[in-house]
Amino acid sequence: MQTVDKTLERTFVNEVKDSQDETILLRGWVYKIIDLSNIVFVKLRDKSGIIQLVTNKEQIEGLKLENAIEVIGKKSKNEKAPGGIEIIVDEIKILGRTYYDKLPFEINSYKNKAALETQLDHRTIALRRPEIRAIFKVQNEIEQAFRDYLRSKNFEQIHTAKIIDSSTEGGSEMFTVNYFDRRSFLAQSPQFYKQMMVGAGFERVYEIGHAYRAELHNTWRHLNEYVSLDVEMGFIKDEFELMDLEEGFLDYLFKHLNKVCKKELEMYKVELPNEVKIPRITLEEAHKILLEKYNKKSPIGNIDAKGEELICDYVKKEYGTEFVFLTKYPVAKRPMYTMPDDEDKTLTKSFDLIYDGLEITTGGQRINDYEMLKENIIKFGLNPEDFDFYLDTFKYGMPPHGGFAIGLERLTMKILKLSNIREATLVPRDMKRLTP
Amino acid sequence: MQTVDKTLERTFVNEVKDSQDETILLRGWVYKIIDLSNIVFVKLRDKSGIIQLVTNKEQIEGLKLENAIEVIGKKSKNEKAPGGIEIIVDEIKILGRTYYDKLPFEINSYKNKAALETQLDHRTIALRRPEIRAIFKVQNEIEQAFRDYLRSKNFEQIHTAKIIDSSTEGGSEMFTVNYFDRRSFLAQSPQFYKQMMVGAGFERVYEIGHAYRAELHNTWRHLNEYVSLDVEMGFIKDEFELMDLEEGFLDYLFKHLNKVCKKELEMYKVELPNEVKIPRITLEEAHKILLEKYNKKSPIGNIDAKGEELICDYVKKEYGTEFVFLTKYPVAKRPMYTMPDDEDKTLTKSFDLIYDGLEITTGGQRINDYEMLKENIIKFGLNPEDFDFYLDTFKYGMPPHGGFAIGLERLTMKILKLSNIREATLVPRDMKRLTP
Repeated sequence: MQTVDKTLERTFVNEVKDSQDETILLRGWVYKIIDLSNIVFVKLRDKSGIIQLVTNKEQIEGLKLENAIEVIGKKSKNEKAPGGIEIIVDEIKILGRTYYDKLPFEINSYKNKAALETQLDHRTIALRRPEIRAIFKVQNEIEQAFRDYLRSKNFEQIHTAKIIDSSTEGGSEMFTVNYFDRRSFLAQSPQFYKQMMVGAGFERVYEIGHAYRAELHNTWRHLNEYVSLDVEMGFIKDEFELMDLEEGFLDYLFKHLNKVCKKELEMYKVELPNEVKIPRITLEEAHKILLEKYNKKSPIGNIDAKGEELICDYVKKEYGTEFVFLTKYPVAKRPMYTMPDDEDKTLTKSFDLIYDGLEITTGGQRINDYEMLKENIIKFGLNPEDFDFYLDTFKYGMPPHGGFAIGLERLTMKILKLSNIREATLVPRDMKRLTP
Repeated sequence: MQTVDKTLERTFVNEVKDSQDETILLRGWVYKIIDLSNIVFVKLRDKSGIIQLVTNKEQIEGLKLENAIEVIGKKSKNEKAPGGIEIIVDEIKILGRTYYDKLPFEINSYKNKAALETQLDHRTIALRRPEIRAIFKVQNEIEQAFRDYLRSKNFEQIHTAKIIDSSTEGGSEMFTVNYFDRRSFLAQSPQFYKQMMVGAGFERVYEIGHAYRAELHNTWRHLNEYVSLDVEMGFIKDEFELMDLEEGFLDYLFKHLNKVCKKELEMYKVELPNEVKIPRITLEEAHKILLEKYNKKSPIGNIDAKGEELICDYVKKEYGTEFVFLTKYPVAKRPMYTMPDDEDKTLTKSFDLIYDGLEITTGGQRINDYEMLKENIIKFGLNPEDFDFYLDTFKYGMPPHGGFAIGLERLTMKILKLSNIREATLVPRDMKRLTP
């Protein structure tokens, strides 16, 4: 065998085509072995793609599917090879051994045949399927777009505490933490803290972090630990400015994904519009539409899962979009910090964003006056003293402000039309699942 | 009073100078009121800076320090005004009222006279001091640089579970969470998950997320909840490749901060070198140096806080840098997943990064062979079955890999030469503090 240059730099699969080098060093996993007796094709998979290696029986001795390997070989054009390029192998070296009799499920099959629960049990093996990992490429880019968009609008990122002292936002749905000798809670959202940071002078903040819900739901759309994309903005005029901001983000996001996730969107047969315009319908109007067009009654002051689906059907037909802002929820259905409406005091300056039948955002303008907020806390049957840590900021000049939060996994799920939110989470936590 | 255009867009203070408009709309807080009887100067502070308003007694009626206000006025050049520009006020409107008799401490004084604990009690008020908020501008840019640098090297961001099933990394230092009817834990680090995601095919990952330590330490350098900048990289040659990566990041970071945080670094009188080169010293050598040059004995297989300070004194004099990598820690002092050294099997392919007397990173190459890892778990007196969720990935071809983690608050603290880590945390959590 010829001597190869051991100082070769590693080339990623997606760089091979444009590489000027004749001799290439690749690293990755054994995706497929096609043994044609006199010649053996091995497909090598790395984080960037899959490439065909031309080898022989001797070179692949001891090689099994999913071994981590290093390969040195020569680039060769072959129109029949996937991508038009293959590697004539000089040397294969095993870097990561395998210890299995049978894979838990097929990784290289055209169709993913494993049940979701089995995939989640062996999450890291399921992720080796390129189309599963693609979900997280898209998720990564959602986050990147969120950050880029907000930074361009003068927002700063914050990190706020997840271990909190009081169960102010609803005790029964919070996880308790044993904090030294005290009982504490995992934050349901950074709601209070992001408002406080607006008041602290940051004015415009966002946080990307975990939120915890001890909800007794085990459905396709609930997670007990999820990533929340939180936004809060000071010196706003009204809640419509917040809807403009979110619409602007989604518009930016779809353009971004169409640019950088073309391959991934194709894998999921998804076509994203290059422009996002979102109609705004009051909850009252929505109720009327549901009743008149779909003969569907709604719960008072809210909309149920079926209603969310139907109203999206309506806007799809009427406006050609999968998004709709529902506005002006009644006071009784919104948290105590929600700003009442200017005209009708039984309503609030709040909104939800529904995307393809699923609520992905709750938002609104908040009360910014100390006395008004304190009174509202009392009206809601709560004790203002429990909120001292939060109310303090409101004593020292709190500007009009508001914000919203987007569930990262829900947004990912809806963009790729996944059927279960667990698919959009690397290591999901639900009522039954704490591993891996 | 003249009629002003109510459709005016808000201008940030740092945009006033370059603005083409004569009439300007500003929003912010009342930072200072200087009443000269016939004329009143008000300093307005927004997230971008401070500007002087020229007003009169009538216009400021009812105005108090820290009111959130909106101002419309005319731009005017005045060499004596800070920044050479002031605003001749047409109208001031109060947007956020105040409800205090006395501020908890002065916000507009030249020196910050409040004790740290008092500042933390009123965190959002302390943050209104520009130099306090500046810390988080720098922290924000550290994170941005971390992300930009790693993305350019083909790393992907991951989010992994913080609620975990087992106390595998050391039970006594973990917080317990009541997870429905089960006991679970808050993750001390994403260590296992980031390794698993390398094996899942991401190859190169980073995570920016909270980590939890139930340590019984209440010192200037400990937090019980902190933000960890985690990196893990597959297909590495050795641990030195990881040190190269971290050195590359710090070099990139310092250049970035010198570019975008000039003002903030000046506030703290910090001069960052524009190039970072980090010497690498084995722990054994370090012990020798400490003994010979400083007559300082070290604990076996480790270095203590005093030793960290002295070794930094040494590299400062010898190499002109505040950083030093200490390498080749003994097996007994590193976790069970650490790769043993090639030459001396009592040592490991591990490192710490010490920055100006403080450890900010622990890292190293990990064991990637399933059998070897399992044996090591047993050698460490642990039960491999407790690690099933982690070991599973290693059965299916795990490449050589390793990584490191940087404490975000520690890095921020050391860059700005803060004396307490709580200063580098928006809402710190320590043994005694759960609020705000």
